[in-house]
Amino acid sequence: MRVIFNEEMQAVADDLDHMARNVRDAIHGAGQALTRQDLDAAQTVIDGDAETDALANSVIDQCVVLLSRQNPVATDLRVVVASLRLAATFERMGDLARHIAETARRTYPESPLPPEAIDMFQQMQDFLDVTADRLVTMLADRDTNVAEQIIADDDKLDELHRRTFALAQSPEWSGTNQQLIDVVLLGRFMERLGDHAVSASRRVVYIVSGFDPSKEPARDEGTDID
Amino acid sequence: MRVIFNEEMQAVADDLDHMARNVRDAIHGAGQALTRQDLDAAQTVIDGDAETDALANSVIDQCVVLLSRQNPVATDLRVVVASLRLAATFERMGDLARHIAETARRTYPESPLPPEAIDMFQQMQDFLDVTADRLVTMLADRDTNVAEQIIADDDKLDELHRRTFALAQSPEWSGTNQQLIDVVLLGRFMERLGDHAVSASRRVVYIVSGFDPSKEPARDEGTDID
Repeated sequence: MRVIFNEEMQAVADDLDHMARNVRDAIHGAGQALTRQDLDAAQTVIDGDAETDALANSVIDQCVVLLSRQNPVATDLRVVVASLRLAATFERMGDLARHIAETARRTYPESPLPPEAIDMFQQMQDFLDVTADRLVTMLADRDTNVAEQIIADDDKLDELHRRTFALAQSPEWSGTNQQLIDVVLLGRFMERLGDHAVSASRRVVYIVSGFDPSKEPARDEGTDID
Repeated sequence: MRVIFNEEMQAVADDLDHMARNVRDAIHGAGQALTRQDLDAAQTVIDGDAETDALANSVIDQCVVLLSRQNPVATDLRVVVASLRLAATFERMGDLARHIAETARRTYPESPLPPEAIDMFQQMQDFLDVTADRLVTMLADRDTNVAEQIIADDDKLDELHRRTFALAQSPEWSGTNQQLIDVVLLGRFMERLGDHAVSASRRVVYIVSGFDPSKEPARDEGTDID
């Protein structure tokens, strides 16, 4: 996404790239906090979220100025609107990573997870770490193949998420009710991170190809009723 | 919000009013499903969400056309951008109400809640029912006083939500782990409905007054780490 449709969009594209890198770092950091009780990583994610929020506001302000001055039409206009929505998606991903970090900070030096849940959350984190790296590549290179990979792979995260519920109801489960609450919320935050990555990918596909992702069925289907 | 800034915005305003009414009905219906095991209400909410999604797409499309043809600037432009974001907020509220209805449908004819949690969820639902009615009034009358009430009152919902976590860790708790999972997710959906109502209220205050709500601290703070 080095150049979107003209030079006036360059600053917006740069801020979106910056947001994607912040979100990647926040996802990695939240994972460190969650799976390794890394308090510094947790605090960095928590403190860093303000910059991501500020970048989202910056993108919105720049898009408004750009709409006002350039009066883009047709595809160019839809790219601006998609950029506005992409900024909102990244902002939300920053919030979700922060929530994970806050949970890890609260239980430090203990893990919020009972031992039998750690491997499953590590798998979800490994998935999100790959997704986070892909997000940055996708945006920097406007690479729709990477976007399609993110979209296609999200079912794997949903399946891991479902398995946390099964674990919590199995004889293997040893956790307290506080740990079950945290497992449910953490799983939800991670699943939503995956959903938002899919949403971001659809917007990038749209920006690059002109296809309208808002006509796709909404994400966030089904996982929470299983 | 009968007229936002000119006649071209009338269709957008009508669709946003329509979305607000749909969201109100979905919140009321989800509450019926959750607190009274009303399967018809659950199904109506689930089936009705597609219309809310379609209205959101309609608002986006109309805003894009309007931006293209009218080239609004200054406050008018920001009102269009706020309308885009308001549509996204309402669409998400429809999703959350649907999730509540889906949970109630899954456990029908039983409640997803253990007996000791019912009163607390009824209180949260009573709160959301009032908020849902206020949303419609706020939007139809562009009433910033109602918006301010929604914003000011949200702490009450957050407090009720925190109490569900305390209940789940008290000797009074009799629920299964499946019920605890549902209590956590349902509580989260309801809390997020409140957050989104606050977000919608800030956008309406902005639309009416020109004050920029995106510079406010983000919602969704703290509740999930208590």
